[in-house]
Amino acid sequence: MTTHSLLILPGDGIGPEVMTEVRKVIDWFQTNKGIAFDVSEDLVGGAAYDKHGKPLADETMAKALEVDAVLLGAVGGPAYDNLDFSVKPERGLLRLRKEMDLFANLRPAQCFDALADFSSLKREVVAGLDILIVRELTSGVYFGEPRGIHSDDNNPQNEGGRVGINTQRYTSGEIRRVARAAFELAKKRDNRVCSMEKANVMESGILWREEVQWVHDNEYPEVELSHMYADNGAMQLVRRPSQFDVIVTDNLFGDILSDAAAMLTGSLGMLPSASLGAPMANGRPRAMYEPVHGSAPDITGQGKANPIACILSFAMALRYSYDLGAEADLLEKAVEKVLADGVRTADLMGPEGGTPVSTSQMGDKIVGAL
Amino acid sequence: MTTHSLLILPGDGIGPEVMTEVRKVIDWFQTNKGIAFDVSEDLVGGAAYDKHGKPLADETMAKALEVDAVLLGAVGGPAYDNLDFSVKPERGLLRLRKEMDLFANLRPAQCFDALADFSSLKREVVAGLDILIVRELTSGVYFGEPRGIHSDDNNPQNEGGRVGINTQRYTSGEIRRVARAAFELAKKRDNRVCSMEKANVMESGILWREEVQWVHDNEYPEVELSHMYADNGAMQLVRRPSQFDVIVTDNLFGDILSDAAAMLTGSLGMLPSASLGAPMANGRPRAMYEPVHGSAPDITGQGKANPIACILSFAMALRYSYDLGAEADLLEKAVEKVLADGVRTADLMGPEGGTPVSTSQMGDKIVGAL
Ligand SMILES: CC(C)[C@H](C(=O)O)[C@@H](O)C(=O)O
Ligand SMILES: CC(C)[C@H](C(=O)O)[C@@H](O)C(=O)O
Repeated sequence: MTTHSLLILPGDGIGPEVMTEVRKVIDWFQTNKGIAFDVSEDLVGGAAYDKHGKPLADETMAKALEVDAVLLGAVGGPAYDNLDFSVKPERGLLRLRKEMDLFANLRPAQCFDALADFSSLKREVVAGLDILIVRELTSGVYFGEPRGIHSDDNNPQNEGGRVGINTQRYTSGEIRRVARAAFELAKKRDNRVCSMEKANVMESGILWREEVQWVHDNEYPEVELSHMYADNGAMQLVRRPSQFDVIVTDNLFGDILSDAAAMLTGSLGMLPSASLGAPMANGRPRAMYEPVHGSAPDITGQGKANPIACILSFAMALRYSYDLGAEADLLEKAVEKVLADGVRTADLMGPEGGTPVSTSQMGDKIVGAL
Repeated sequence: MTTHSLLILPGDGIGPEVMTEVRKVIDWFQTNKGIAFDVSEDLVGGAAYDKHGKPLADETMAKALEVDAVLLGAVGGPAYDNLDFSVKPERGLLRLRKEMDLFANLRPAQCFDALADFSSLKREVVAGLDILIVRELTSGVYFGEPRGIHSDDNNPQNEGGRVGINTQRYTSGEIRRVARAAFELAKKRDNRVCSMEKANVMESGILWREEVQWVHDNEYPEVELSHMYADNGAMQLVRRPSQFDVIVTDNLFGDILSDAAAMLTGSLGMLPSASLGAPMANGRPRAMYEPVHGSAPDITGQGKANPIACILSFAMALRYSYDLGAEADLLEKAVEKVLADGVRTADLMGPEGGTPVSTSQMGDKIVGAL
């Protein structure tokens, strides 16, 4: 019998709370479907810093490179805001992304019909919305050198005497591989890719545009490709998001645009993500799964967190890392059923009411619906 | 009698069309209020490229540095998409911003009540919305060196063999001066500034946060200051934009976030902007005014463009460059009246109807209401 290895990294804030609910789901699949998961758990982010003095221990990094998949909760929080940059919680996450080489970050922005009224956008603008943002995740301005804060004392023009530097750097190869991921995904969807950059003002944007076009022309001529400046992209996402199918963009633009897109749907506590790398020996991509929401320090420890985004992230793991597509469907259906039954964590509770539940009760309901 | 010098740069696309309407407004003030404007006109962007082989002639640049204010229409368009980077229309605009040292770009995002239904957001989310984004405009990743596309042939790992580089670079002095502009503006509004960056992953973001905080603590302790990561900022703008008063952010984030904010209001064809620099000999800031909308090639030459954003940009010039606050009020009131009367260019024509007018008729109506 194959075992499926999984490294769970609950992280900070509501991370551990939502992860407890995922554990219930895993147990259910083990007990009722005889699927063997080999689950280990470790620290990341502020939690790792508290124990190890850094946001990701080397052993944890090594473990992440051995398993079939990593499931991460969330990192960061005000308790860690004043830490030195090199040990910030976020750097643990960035190290995982970089060393696992997870270059394609898949962020679906889907509007769940039962929740369309939570959007600040009009129902007719977001109902049925289903776009997929593919964000480059291992390069760009998050990683480029030189970087840092330096003294600029010799410059009498510079009041304050310091300079802060980051470098946006993309190779053609880095752009091509994430473009391929986007075209592959589009083929299973509506066959349309929109690439976003600022080629009008940034040379790295010109390279981005040219390389995406190259991959299209040489390898995916059958997929519809368009290009858009990222500022216009932000506008169009607000104006008429349904015009998009797959959006492919760089690390920084992807961060901003995918968060805006997630918020459009009104379903922030519902949205999963997958970060995929090159295929491993088992033929499946190296992978890490994370809810799109953050560590939500304001509601930590109150039983208010919505575990659905993390549970749906596990569903993505079932599909992409364990080849258990039927089981992923089953889990997603269970979530839909619970929502249709009116079961609601605090974030989902609207004027039309519903059955209010805690984080833990939501987990139980979903397991019950499996 | 003081004369008020103005350099008009209509630029590309709908730029010349909307500028024709501003000319009518200027004529009205000259004839009816005895205000002497010394207006000159020149080329920028693709129009300048067509004539000079570059997007801004040196004489135009020199002229821009002499006048009290510049009013620019829009630059760019598909006809120029394949030009070499160094002569792209946008580089004419960037040169003006840089050499005039217009470090503070003011982008109001206001929802005009008569137009709230044009927003894709719910009326209750955007009605009465009035936020001001102050974008740093002369530094950051648009301008930092090194930059360019280079061969990376020696790197066997790099399929494609090229690398694209841009540098995000901010000095403490550059951050402080735009922060001061934001605090000064906040004092005349709701006294709140929210600064946005990615200090969790970028050192230039850390410097940004620290320097804005420094200006606050040392010079504007009475203004309320908060900090937000730019991705969360994008989310919050969509979720509940009315939580903001003044937002201050860098060149790149400001580009994206201000476009998203403009679109929230549903009034894109209505929004002006001002880019301000250091005080000139006359005590007023060096200044360029522009509509927030672009060159709109899809509707160019059809009499469909809405001239209001450009007319309101001229109103900002009256206020900030010519010390003609009462005249600015008068012009803004005339615009409001025309809208309240149901006069509508194509972009403003909704289900509730109105009087459809062309670009030129809208200009006439506004002059008629003065
Ligand atoms: C936590 C932070 C480092 C991260 C990022 O900026 O990538 C987050 O915002 C995200 O989008 O996953
Ligand atoms: C035209 C372009 C160079 C410009 C920018 O990116 O700054 C525009 O998008 C703007 O926001 O003024």
